[in-house]
Amino acid sequence: MSKSVDLNADMGESYGPWTMGDDAALLDVVTSANIACGFHAGDPDVMAATMALARDHGVGIGAHPGFDDLQGFGRRRMQVPPVTLANMIRYQLGAAQGMARAAGTKVRHLKLHGALSNMACVDPAMALTCYEAALELDPDLIIMVLAATAMEEVVRELGCNWCGEIFADRAYKDDGTLVDRSLPGAVIHDPDIAGPRVLQMVEEGAIITESGARIPTAIDTICLHGDTPTAVQLARSVRHSLSEGGIEVRAFDGRRG
Amino acid sequence: MSKSVDLNADMGESYGPWTMGDDAALLDVVTSANIACGFHAGDPDVMAATMALARDHGVGIGAHPGFDDLQGFGRRRMQVPPVTLANMIRYQLGAAQGMARAAGTKVRHLKLHGALSNMACVDPAMALTCYEAALELDPDLIIMVLAATAMEEVVRELGCNWCGEIFADRAYKDDGTLVDRSLPGAVIHDPDIAGPRVLQMVEEGAIITESGARIPTAIDTICLHGDTPTAVQLARSVRHSLSEGGIEVRAFDGRRG
Amino acid sequence: MSKSVDLNADMGESYGPWTMGDDAALLDVVTSANIACGFHAGDPDVMAATMALARDHGVGIGAHPGFDDLQGFGRRRMQVPPVTLANMIRYQLGAAQGMARAAGTKVRHLKLHGALSNMACVDPAMALTCYEAALELDPDLIIMVLAATAMEEVVRELGCNWCGEIFADRAYKDDGTLVDRSLPGAVIHDPDIAGPRVLQMVEEGAIITESGARIPTAIDTICLHGDTPTAVQLARSVRHSLSEGGIEVRAFDGRRG
Amino acid sequence: MSKSVDLNADMGESYGPWTMGDDAALLDVVTSANIACGFHAGDPDVMAATMALARDHGVGIGAHPGFDDLQGFGRRRMQVPPVTLANMIRYQLGAAQGMARAAGTKVRHLKLHGALSNMACVDPAMALTCYEAALELDPDLIIMVLAATAMEEVVRELGCNWCGEIFADRAYKDDGTLVDRSLPGAVIHDPDIAGPRVLQMVEEGAIITESGARIPTAIDTICLHGDTPTAVQLARSVRHSLSEGGIEVRAFDGRRG
Repeated sequence: MSKSVDLNADMGESYGPWTMGDDAALLDVVTSANIACGFHAGDPDVMAATMALARDHGVGIGAHPGFDDLQGFGRRRMQVPPVTLANMIRYQLGAAQGMARAAGTKVRHLKLHGALSNMACVDPAMALTCYEAALELDPDLIIMVLAATAMEEVVRELGCNWCGEIFADRAYKDDGTLVDRSLPGAVIHDPDIAGPRVLQMVEEGAIITESGARIPTAIDTICLHGDTPTAVQLARSVRHSLSEGGIEVRAFDGRRG
Repeated sequence: MSKSVDLNADMGESYGPWTMGDDAALLDVVTSANIACGFHAGDPDVMAATMALARDHGVGIGAHPGFDDLQGFGRRRMQVPPVTLANMIRYQLGAAQGMARAAGTKVRHLKLHGALSNMACVDPAMALTCYEAALELDPDLIIMVLAATAMEEVVRELGCNWCGEIFADRAYKDDGTLVDRSLPGAVIHDPDIAGPRVLQMVEEGAIITESGARIPTAIDTICLHGDTPTAVQLARSVRHSLSEGGIEVRAFDGRRG
Repeated sequence: MSKSVDLNADMGESYGPWTMGDDAALLDVVTSANIACGFHAGDPDVMAATMALARDHGVGIGAHPGFDDLQGFGRRRMQVPPVTLANMIRYQLGAAQGMARAAGTKVRHLKLHGALSNMACVDPAMALTCYEAALELDPDLIIMVLAATAMEEVVRELGCNWCGEIFADRAYKDDGTLVDRSLPGAVIHDPDIAGPRVLQMVEEGAIITESGARIPTAIDTICLHGDTPTAVQLARSVRHSLSEGGIEVRAFDGRRG
Repeated sequence: MSKSVDLNADMGESYGPWTMGDDAALLDVVTSANIACGFHAGDPDVMAATMALARDHGVGIGAHPGFDDLQGFGRRRMQVPPVTLANMIRYQLGAAQGMARAAGTKVRHLKLHGALSNMACVDPAMALTCYEAALELDPDLIIMVLAATAMEEVVRELGCNWCGEIFADRAYKDDGTLVDRSLPGAVIHDPDIAGPRVLQMVEEGAIITESGARIPTAIDTICLHGDTPTAVQLARSVRHSLSEGGIEVRAFDGRRG
């Protein structure tokens, strides 16, 4: 049985007159796009344009909701009560579904953004609140989780469609969490290192940590970035390594927990 | 054949810590609720709570999109290009549909708010842009238009589901437009006048103007307000007059143009 | 030497079409007004109107900056880096100073709002960041602090003008912090209790805790509320008790740490 | 007597995670910076950073207020009542003054942004409302106006400090208005044309129109752009041509009408 993996990237993070990232370049590389929903980035015009592009490239469309915080790009932690959290998810996902329907396509998956993701991946109650709210709108939605975190436990418990994600450009600690960005080696910038490393993790079905330890986990999708020319290059290298290694690159189907 | 008419009101116009109107009182009177979608009023928590209330009262739910302008409550005219206008409608309607689905109900109709409505009722191209964008998300959606305006022409042309609306508390000029709010008699505050006047218009199937002239039109729904205790009283009087006059008060079905 | 005390209240917390509190009623009771600066409440029109009212009542004007969060009314904790915190204070205070200058008056004091205040009163570094940023704009500004908290330590250290505040309607624990709102007796609603209690604290120069213990502290101003008719009544009762007890009610002068 | 002229550019138009323009490159060319005030661009962190840069380059600092519209970048016309307009200016100018004071510098001038400018340059009542509001905060403020428009009439009438501006890269019609951007030749992209053309206008003290006609006017400052590498090149060319032509490039002093 041949293996396959999905490549995903955050997109549609422009806003009004401001552009971010090279979405057009990335759409040739990835198979899934996480599209900002207007709260931390991505006004309705940006959403519509990004969804049309993704649709034309045959790339799977995901909603990427975040905190209502443009200045902080959804990266500042906010203390939000669960009911507000649930409504925040419903509102953004609903908007994304509407925009997708208007573009003749649909929202296949959901991935939490920024501080919302950082908080939910160590707070199962918060992850549950978000995911249940999303599944109320579409029980078949695929929830994209950070592999080997509380998020994964929650989707397994829920029994919903989900997929597990690892980062192409971040070093992992032995407990499965990411090495802090401020430490040396935390972010992998070299395309020649990133590609083979990702291939190896996909082949082994395990996160390989800084120390060389293995954390077996579901690796359904690889998170790539497109905010710099180097990032796009790294993304291409990952795709190339996977193809060379005989791993099919295609959109995930979702797996049942 | 017995006649029937719908009563509608704008609701869910609170925001964060600020409340507006007496939605609970109005929900005993009206049969359709136009619910703000977060751009001019109505944050996701307010939307969710209002939809749940409307659902529990068996009141039809409508999306009530407006300009992205909290300070101006969507009442300040903005010059927005057509593509942005369309995406603005898609986004807000999509969000409302998502919130409704999560509440186990659905969005039946759409009504434009504030300056967006004021502009679209004299600008058929603008009305068309908005309505087409909305119908892309749900071709069965009922479009609520101001009777005898450009909006009505547009929905007749589109051949979509629609319903025509008159105001219970506003005086009309002979050309079918409203008497300016700044003029004496423009707003009807007396419940004893408003009720019988609305009944007569529904019975005759015509707007009765200041001068007593008749403008035959589709009167499917009556717009009521709930922002003051007097407004709620007037709303009750209109419902009472209609019932006394043998007009059934129930949610519209939409009519094809 | 006769004693005096200031009475302060948060004002100008309306926004766009939404009103909050009965500022006009409170302005007859208080001697200082903490005016929202547009980030959590108080658009520029509300600020201008509130400042004009305060000026006409001879009530001292304060800037009341908060987090940039209308939906949450600045009550949701946000993780904001110090440089952003400082600029947030500078921006809001600057805007308030400009509005005051246009109204022919000036900003005398600064008080942090909501979650910003809750966080700063236990985090001296955060209080210091905020207060230093404010004093850069006006070194004579009076900083209003919650008495007997980290805020007080910070202003004493800074040696700036400041005044210490207690709450008229909240019960205190023996460590000087407030009894949690969710517990019985946490909020004092009875005007007949609040008035004499405040008088006693001012006379003794000490916070009186639930258990009857005394925490000697600088009581320069009493925080009142005006969000409900009962709150306004309680505010009046406090003013009455103080006057009856021979305490002069007038705006603070600020004291040097 | 040797002639001098000022070069100005809009700056600080980044927001949160999004950058716009190459402010650092432009600061070596211009003598005045129009800094966005947070409503259409320029969050408080961006304002602080831009003011610090301008101060370090010895470039004069101006407030550049606009409509409260991030998505539209203040370029969408909004119908705002005069009192709201005045408070909008007071708020943004006040914030800018506060930020400047904190940076150890001051706001020297004010220039309206985007749609606000487009509307005010043909609506003297609107220009008057904005300028009077600004002068309430600082009677010595220099108002930057589009030369030969209603703005100029207003400042002459007011007798305030002001300076007249022309565009380096836009073609003029014989009535002094700009050739519409959609027409060929409306925007001058060639640095080799722009530089000598500006020099000639400054030497003659007149706008030179498409047809070669002259409109004598006060040319105190030249508007440059820095949103593209070509724009920065054009800016440098203008500065070079002026210096070669014996025109001193330095910040304006303001002239009394």
